[in-house]
Amino acid sequence: MIPAETLAIFLDTARSRVDEALERYLPVPPECPEIVGQAMRYSVFAGGKRLRPILTLAAADAVAQADRARPVTALIPAVDAALPAACAVELIHTYSLIHDDLPAMDNDTLRRGRPTLHVVYGDGVAILAGDGLQADAFALLAREPVGDDPVIVTRKLRALRAIADAVGSTGMVGGQALDLQAAGRAPGHALALDADGVRAMHARKTGALIRAAAVSGAIMAGALDETLRAVDRYATDLGLAFQIVDDILDVEGKTGELGKTAGKDAAGAKPTYPALFGLERSRDFANHCVTRARQTLAEAGLTRGWLADIADWVVSRRS
Amino acid sequence: MIPAETLAIFLDTARSRVDEALERYLPVPPECPEIVGQAMRYSVFAGGKRLRPILTLAAADAVAQADRARPVTALIPAVDAALPAACAVELIHTYSLIHDDLPAMDNDTLRRGRPTLHVVYGDGVAILAGDGLQADAFALLAREPVGDDPVIVTRKLRALRAIADAVGSTGMVGGQALDLQAAGRAPGHALALDADGVRAMHARKTGALIRAAAVSGAIMAGALDETLRAVDRYATDLGLAFQIVDDILDVEGKTGELGKTAGKDAAGAKPTYPALFGLERSRDFANHCVTRARQTLAEAGLTRGWLADIADWVVSRRS
Repeated sequence: MIPAETLAIFLDTARSRVDEALERYLPVPPECPEIVGQAMRYSVFAGGKRLRPILTLAAADAVAQADRARPVTALIPAVDAALPAACAVELIHTYSLIHDDLPAMDNDTLRRGRPTLHVVYGDGVAILAGDGLQADAFALLAREPVGDDPVIVTRKLRALRAIADAVGSTGMVGGQALDLQAAGRAPGHALALDADGVRAMHARKTGALIRAAAVSGAIMAGALDETLRAVDRYATDLGLAFQIVDDILDVEGKTGELGKTAGKDAAGAKPTYPALFGLERSRDFANHCVTRARQTLAEAGLTRGWLADIADWVVSRRS
Repeated sequence: MIPAETLAIFLDTARSRVDEALERYLPVPPECPEIVGQAMRYSVFAGGKRLRPILTLAAADAVAQADRARPVTALIPAVDAALPAACAVELIHTYSLIHDDLPAMDNDTLRRGRPTLHVVYGDGVAILAGDGLQADAFALLAREPVGDDPVIVTRKLRALRAIADAVGSTGMVGGQALDLQAAGRAPGHALALDADGVRAMHARKTGALIRAAAVSGAIMAGALDETLRAVDRYATDLGLAFQIVDDILDVEGKTGELGKTAGKDAAGAKPTYPALFGLERSRDFANHCVTRARQTLAEAGLTRGWLADIADWVVSRRS
């Protein structure tokens, strides 16, 4: 359990623990060549919100405090057990941003207020830094928390599988491919996406990893299958709300506040919720997702901890 | 055990088992979007030698037949247990070729006698297909062989870790970054590599995955730590011999026979063994590695099976 009196304190504390762990887990020269180490750190420590790893820790925390939690292994508290999974999820998220920003993909030059990695290190090193982050994330998951305890080994492998399934060709990578096709940047005619198509694309592209972030935390905390399914439903709604708000912010936001180029979606003819439903209905839809997410938590007895507040934070954020 | 009377029969049988398993394991639409599924298959089924997965199966086979083998789990024969690891290694090898061929990296347009993936599908889809293959490889390793048996779960996680460590920033990706720097294709001055530097670069770039291929097979077969270390030493020498022969073939070969552009190394001012030591000394060095590899096998009691013959095959190959 991470003790905190307000969501802001919880977020700060969780973020610090993730940042400190990432610093410790990332390879340094001479383990890895200097240029790769530098490039990976440039993107990993770029001032991201750390939504996904915070969600991993919050899910572990909530499961450990739930009425129906399976007794957690006495050796490692739930949040500590989930920290490697949280970091792995953030490394994978970072790799996906690096590759998405490449000229061959979304061709973005600004991210979190700084030049994107390929602008600074060139496309080749950026591709490699992304590839390395993905492999290092799985290596970290396989290694930490250290120990031969069959309970921990089984949870690690299960969490790893949830994350790998979420980011492969059937998940995140598949979603980005659909996005590329919709934007007319893949061979053949541009893919026309209707409302269902946009939802399915986002379910893969951003939804899958957000779900895996929460689910892997719950697995490391020893959640029962029933609780795990509730965490997954909660995170599905959270991910959808997150994506809708992202689209809204892209329409409404200024480049300075966002730290990335605003208005990119419309300029690139990207399929978005506001383009399909208008701003007002999109906002209603995001709020509806949060209501449903809170309901799922209540029904599953996951009311202690910060998962409900995190859902509110996701729709109220300004960047 | 794969019954075979000659190396050629063993190679054919192992290759068929790998191809059949890859066909079964790779996602198909609608699990994954069609374009990603097609792109991944284009490169996975491009007529590769399958050296690495064959090595995984041969290592499992040799360990299972060794005098000092730990009793293998009765449920799954060693070679079957190693098949998912073999396929994961091949998927990762394929992803690395796709990314290495990109214009931002080695800029190769021909591979195994066919246009490279990015020439056919564009750079964006090629990057995604590579990313997807890497994630799908780890998902496969985490999933197969299916079962909750703690022995299998522990071996799977251990094999997965060996492979992930081998291909991350401290391994394959790090080696490719050094190669990029040596070729003057990364920011700053071109990196000057002496003989030790070239060896260290190749130890990461090609050596690490070849070692992990053999070691993961041995792990899945239940090798004792001592046997595992011997398999690792054998594969280190094998990988070195493989790379030297690769460099020699690039100098001597014709594009038609190789199925990739010959003379690329010299044209790109790439650091190679023939460039550093000349062809004759390079050939001697490769043969010396094979002698040492056979010696390691003999000392470790790994003489049944095909590992020694595979070492001979690696130095005598013409493409």
